[in-house]
Amino acid sequence: MRVRVVGAGLLGASVGMALTRAGHHVHLSDVSPTAMALARDLGAGSLEPSAPPQVVVVATPPDVAGAVIAQELIAHPEAVVTDVSSVKAAVLADVRARVGTEQLGRYIGSHPMAGAERSGAIAARADLFEGRSWVLCPHPASAPHAVQTIAELAEFTGAAVTRMPPEDHDRAVAAVSHLPQLAASLVAARLRDLSEDAVGLAGQGVRDVTRIAASDPMLWTQILAGNADALLPVLEALESDLARVREAMIVLGKDPDGDGARAVLASAIADGQQGHARIPGKHGAPPTAYAQLIVVLPDEPGQLGRLFTDVGGAGVNLEDVRIDHAAGKPVGLAELSVLPASAERLWEYLTERGWRLHS
Amino acid sequence: MRVRVVGAGLLGASVGMALTRAGHHVHLSDVSPTAMALARDLGAGSLEPSAPPQVVVVATPPDVAGAVIAQELIAHPEAVVTDVSSVKAAVLADVRARVGTEQLGRYIGSHPMAGAERSGAIAARADLFEGRSWVLCPHPASAPHAVQTIAELAEFTGAAVTRMPPEDHDRAVAAVSHLPQLAASLVAARLRDLSEDAVGLAGQGVRDVTRIAASDPMLWTQILAGNADALLPVLEALESDLARVREAMIVLGKDPDGDGARAVLASAIADGQQGHARIPGKHGAPPTAYAQLIVVLPDEPGQLGRLFTDVGGAGVNLEDVRIDHAAGKPVGLAELSVLPASAERLWEYLTERGWRLHS
Repeated sequence: MRVRVVGAGLLGASVGMALTRAGHHVHLSDVSPTAMALARDLGAGSLEPSAPPQVVVVATPPDVAGAVIAQELIAHPEAVVTDVSSVKAAVLADVRARVGTEQLGRYIGSHPMAGAERSGAIAARADLFEGRSWVLCPHPASAPHAVQTIAELAEFTGAAVTRMPPEDHDRAVAAVSHLPQLAASLVAARLRDLSEDAVGLAGQGVRDVTRIAASDPMLWTQILAGNADALLPVLEALESDLARVREAMIVLGKDPDGDGARAVLASAIADGQQGHARIPGKHGAPPTAYAQLIVVLPDEPGQLGRLFTDVGGAGVNLEDVRIDHAAGKPVGLAELSVLPASAERLWEYLTERGWRLHS
Repeated sequence: MRVRVVGAGLLGASVGMALTRAGHHVHLSDVSPTAMALARDLGAGSLEPSAPPQVVVVATPPDVAGAVIAQELIAHPEAVVTDVSSVKAAVLADVRARVGTEQLGRYIGSHPMAGAERSGAIAARADLFEGRSWVLCPHPASAPHAVQTIAELAEFTGAAVTRMPPEDHDRAVAAVSHLPQLAASLVAARLRDLSEDAVGLAGQGVRDVTRIAASDPMLWTQILAGNADALLPVLEALESDLARVREAMIVLGKDPDGDGARAVLASAIADGQQGHARIPGKHGAPPTAYAQLIVVLPDEPGQLGRLFTDVGGAGVNLEDVRIDHAAGKPVGLAELSVLPASAERLWEYLTERGWRLHS
């Protein structure tokens, strides 16, 4: 494939690197000559087009994606054009307003579900998309060969292709990505005015809830603004749930037994349990109830190595690992998640080798 | 010390195990004979009191803590009494309403900041408090020797003692613990009605934000209800921030350039960044900017062991580890956090041994 990539940031450069590695010809373009040269040096493609592209990947910030897609459709009348923005309906509407039906047929929006906590070509990786979902969003006017071409391109990067109408995609990411981002940011914002003593009580819970609050404000403003229509009902639902909890708190502040107020709190937590249980586990499989073993480990070089060597020796595959360091003490805990069938064997194997375990 | 522990759940049994291990005499009591016997068998203490206790630790559910503390103060007129509930002002007010000044002086509330995701004596550990903060909440009537006694008890379990007035404690946990719990539950609740395809797009972000949504509704109802006064202003602030974001979305739905609406979103994300940066790092130290190395690892037994053996061989101490499994593919990524000064050495060492790395 001859592929033109417009926008040499994290996603564009990673697409370029992945396709170059897979033997395709990638031509890079970016408004910034520096970004373009950096991406080239990292192996994301060349700056000299050899022949007209068969595919154009638009990897610009979401705000300008529609205009750039339209330009590319017009400039390359034989090419299939996709973009990798996190929102799809608004971009499609923008493109539709700028081009004719034939041109629109060669456009198919897509969204690789790959990490973007760091930004820029410097963070790009040829394997960024390996094993990730890459959502294709066909629309009524999209030509079958366009959809097919972009599916192939996504597969060349190692991604797993799924298809979803643009509106469904936007509703899905509103709930599984954009709302969690906003909630993390708003909860983290409440920590600003705390005393040192108060913030010193922060544990693993608030760390996990607010981890993504470290994300980039400029990028996220564009993503959230671009998905306003799909986000609004989700935000309204959250606000209404929150208002019911707040009203329950007012009742409970006056009367700790609070006529029905406790049921509101219990439902809120129980509903959250149900929703949480719907998140798929590793490998896109249904959530598995892993067995957890907690291992006490001294916080010195080599202890984790010794532990994982022993785990490997037991022939048990770790499904997940979490390291939990205790505040103020040189001791840590490693939480090992394994399939329930392997838990007893691992427990015995590690105990024999002197590890202190808890379940 | 002769210590009586009332309530043989996770916290009570863990206190008993920690104190027994440290050579103290622990007498266990619980309304459930089964729970009591289990805790005894796990090494949390004996069921036969030998002599009047010097200290009583009340580890019942928060709802009944006040009544039990009052009973214990009256039944053991020489003993210092503490409780380990997650909320402090409401418990103190309850005790104050039930006992006289002399008795109140022997009560000092406390809160060990130790994990409670699992419950019951079966999850108890002698080292549950090692290196954790244990907050003491002196009140105007508390006797100095009572405060001193509970500080010693907490230190015997390996905890790091801090002191904070009950109201300050409750305001702190409202922001660093109770609000994150509610936000996680409410965001997770939004996932209930999604299609399988939609929830299939869930990535690491929403997993982290909603991890604690798996918590127990009954316990959390008591905790939240018991801290209604301190939670209310924090909930109101969140609701007001959320309303501003929702109003911005309405504006942006009509006009993507949205007169001031984008600034509202950018501020929300930027304020979250600032709040997130205040969370202290490992060991209670100020947050350190760790260097992150991302290692590609095949998903087969022994790979993690081989990796950590190599990390140990490099003489580098891991500060944190995160395992990220790709959906639908038998390949994973390990994100290693190390001190910046060690990153280059570790990179070279691992690369020489054939690992594929990214930063």
